[in-house]
Amino acid sequence: MKRLMIKEVIASPTLDQEITVMGWVRTRRGNKAVSFIALNDGSCIHNLQIVADLARFSPEVMQQITTGASLAVRGTLVASQGAGQSVELQAEEITIFGTCDPNSYPLQKKGHSLEFLRDIAYLRPRTNTFGAILRIRHNMAIAIHEFFHKKGYYYVHTPIITSSDAEGAGQMFRVTTLNLDKLPLNKAGEVDYKKDFFGKPTALTVSGQLEGELAALALGGIYTFGPTFRAENSNTPRHLAEFWMIEPEIAFFDVHDNMDLAEEFTKHCVQWALDNCADDLAFLSEHFDKGLMDRLRFVLANSYERITYTQGIEILEKAIAEGHKFEFPVYWGVDLASEHERYLVEQHFQKPVIMTDYPKEIKAFYMKQNEDGKTVRGMDVLFPLIGEIIGGSEREADFDKLRTHAQEMGVPEKDIWWYLDTRRFGTVPHAGFGLGFERLLLFVTGMSNIRDVIPFPRTPNNAEF
Amino acid sequence: MKRLMIKEVIASPTLDQEITVMGWVRTRRGNKAVSFIALNDGSCIHNLQIVADLARFSPEVMQQITTGASLAVRGTLVASQGAGQSVELQAEEITIFGTCDPNSYPLQKKGHSLEFLRDIAYLRPRTNTFGAILRIRHNMAIAIHEFFHKKGYYYVHTPIITSSDAEGAGQMFRVTTLNLDKLPLNKAGEVDYKKDFFGKPTALTVSGQLEGELAALALGGIYTFGPTFRAENSNTPRHLAEFWMIEPEIAFFDVHDNMDLAEEFTKHCVQWALDNCADDLAFLSEHFDKGLMDRLRFVLANSYERITYTQGIEILEKAIAEGHKFEFPVYWGVDLASEHERYLVEQHFQKPVIMTDYPKEIKAFYMKQNEDGKTVRGMDVLFPLIGEIIGGSEREADFDKLRTHAQEMGVPEKDIWWYLDTRRFGTVPHAGFGLGFERLLLFVTGMSNIRDVIPFPRTPNNAEF
Repeated sequence: MKRLMIKEVIASPTLDQEITVMGWVRTRRGNKAVSFIALNDGSCIHNLQIVADLARFSPEVMQQITTGASLAVRGTLVASQGAGQSVELQAEEITIFGTCDPNSYPLQKKGHSLEFLRDIAYLRPRTNTFGAILRIRHNMAIAIHEFFHKKGYYYVHTPIITSSDAEGAGQMFRVTTLNLDKLPLNKAGEVDYKKDFFGKPTALTVSGQLEGELAALALGGIYTFGPTFRAENSNTPRHLAEFWMIEPEIAFFDVHDNMDLAEEFTKHCVQWALDNCADDLAFLSEHFDKGLMDRLRFVLANSYERITYTQGIEILEKAIAEGHKFEFPVYWGVDLASEHERYLVEQHFQKPVIMTDYPKEIKAFYMKQNEDGKTVRGMDVLFPLIGEIIGGSEREADFDKLRTHAQEMGVPEKDIWWYLDTRRFGTVPHAGFGLGFERLLLFVTGMSNIRDVIPFPRTPNNAEF
Repeated sequence: MKRLMIKEVIASPTLDQEITVMGWVRTRRGNKAVSFIALNDGSCIHNLQIVADLARFSPEVMQQITTGASLAVRGTLVASQGAGQSVELQAEEITIFGTCDPNSYPLQKKGHSLEFLRDIAYLRPRTNTFGAILRIRHNMAIAIHEFFHKKGYYYVHTPIITSSDAEGAGQMFRVTTLNLDKLPLNKAGEVDYKKDFFGKPTALTVSGQLEGELAALALGGIYTFGPTFRAENSNTPRHLAEFWMIEPEIAFFDVHDNMDLAEEFTKHCVQWALDNCADDLAFLSEHFDKGLMDRLRFVLANSYERITYTQGIEILEKAIAEGHKFEFPVYWGVDLASEHERYLVEQHFQKPVIMTDYPKEIKAFYMKQNEDGKTVRGMDVLFPLIGEIIGGSEREADFDKLRTHAQEMGVPEKDIWWYLDTRRFGTVPHAGFGLGFERLLLFVTGMSNIRDVIPFPRTPNNAEF
């Protein structure tokens, strides 16, 4: 008989019919006459209650039904008399696939700390919490592809291994096939990278943006969705060495189009979560973050406030003058901290905020320069609780201005000649932004440590599994 | 006025209305009275014909309209009198975004060789050929997510940087933050990996399968879609150092379920291409591969023939006995070559073939062992022209058998204890397969060199852009 997923059984139960389900035992309780087995198959957060009449099943079978054991159960679906579920499965046949020794299985019935679960990341997808997070993670990925596909923008795979470090977004991991125990040296006694796989030093990408622009200036609108890497030795709840980024880049867009896209995009993702992940969100909200649902609705309910950096500084300076205390100083030219961004969002405007026109010194070389000579058309989207969720800009489309600014910022022309060429040959206005996927997931799941929203986190001294 | 994509204009033209389009000049021709400009914006393979009455536009503007220049054109859409298009845009206003010097722009009007375009990979998305390939690549990615999402399988990001090399699929790239010019040494004089970012040697993943199994044995059904890496020094039209893989893994699946899934999945992708990429396929078929459409329909029209490896060997031996010549020898135990696979598909069965039950010596340690003690439940899908497109298997679910076989194959238990644990704690039957994304694209686009179906190919001595 065809197996049904528990998600299907609960969503559209066909009472008094015989069905087969397969899954893992979450808990078992009961009395001398009957056992109640909570079975989970990962398809949803809900367990299906299995009712086993002990007169029908041998003690040898029943004693193997412990937390973590895997079963197939054939039975009849009936309305449940008990609290907590509307249907239950009256077991007619139970097949044990695999037992699970209660003395050695690390996941027992009740709540383990998130820290403990990080150490056993290879098993934590079996918990309610990580099941919920991974299903939401899946749904956010689908929502992202759905959004851009419907717009007519094309998914582009930018390279992971790169010989360019022009983006300058952070420290890079070296990639090599050289034997470190016996490095080849050239005549000058230096490491001979001609012997390396690519014939020169290479590293893992920190951003797909520059290559994404190459594609956008041919296909019109594109987006990337791939892993990026930062070798910063930061052991914090907000840093990963390996994380996933989404970077749309759209030809013929100015910074205002870019703001419209970023607002529509983030609202689409949040709406998708509410529409498709209600049970998982309810679980996480109840167990980790009572304010989660309100924050999600806050994003949907408001038009994002659009202000310039200069206006933002004025508001913050006024707040300080009126007695508000910040940990970090505020002045024109400073790179704002999360506390400043959150003040604007949560207290001043009580809306998500899009801030534009940043001092050029604190932004990357490729951002479009404003006429004032001081600011660039950067654009950050600021959210409650987490601050900056998106960073982007209109790009400098003028060849001479871009080349000069790259020189000023110390980006060697030999590293970006191909990027500059796009401004020599049929340049167009264009804009784009980057969204850290795990940053989005922190917001949507309400989790507070970024290691808990990626299956296998990579951090200093940790590359397990 | 809102800009329309040329794809929209051509798909649902609204005649005698004023519209604005933006794009790049492909060609320009005409006479003393009128210029015909073929404008492409990357949204589709088609150009929109712009008709510019020279009495309306200054010579200074018109002389800037050369191949590769970028324009915005406002005008009225009218039925076209000329051959080759049904509508054209009567230009009322032309804005030049960027000029394109004919003397230095590498892409002139007519066909460049694929080899030449590989050297200028940063510009080749602007050609018809690579526009078509990249739009098909996008569509195949969307088709893949759509397929698994509808099945209720969850997209999982398996790690890119790994400290495990248990998969054994090939040579790996080392990932490090150590300074190669000044490697730290321990007291024994060896490289001190405790000083490396992760505190031990790490490398780029060759497959997400083992981690994918961890997720499948919690969520039920999952798939990966991410980059994988092989550091093999192979300069061939079929090898990339960096490529993308899709690896579904489904709990409670046996090898027959796996075959059903692989057949349905590949047919879904091909059908999606026919439904959504007709114009791009027509272009590639006409210019590169006249047999392309027939091969795509061949996949859809047939049930895949399912045979065992042993049956396949018998058929091949019979063919040899009857005078068929192969370059490589055929005997029970050999790893079949592409010519053998293609003979079975193209000549013997004239259908795609799924071959199962391979000699255990030529397959990986994790495949389920058959009762005969000689074969394992591997499963390869063989396609016309390219041979193996999918490799997969039912996995060994028995802890003791898996451990013993891993030992026999030389996989150290210290590297896979976490993988073995999934067979200790609630093991279940499960199966999965891997599809090389670029292999699929070779089949669907009809291109013959794998460097032409990925935006920025990484191969020995090449990591440009």
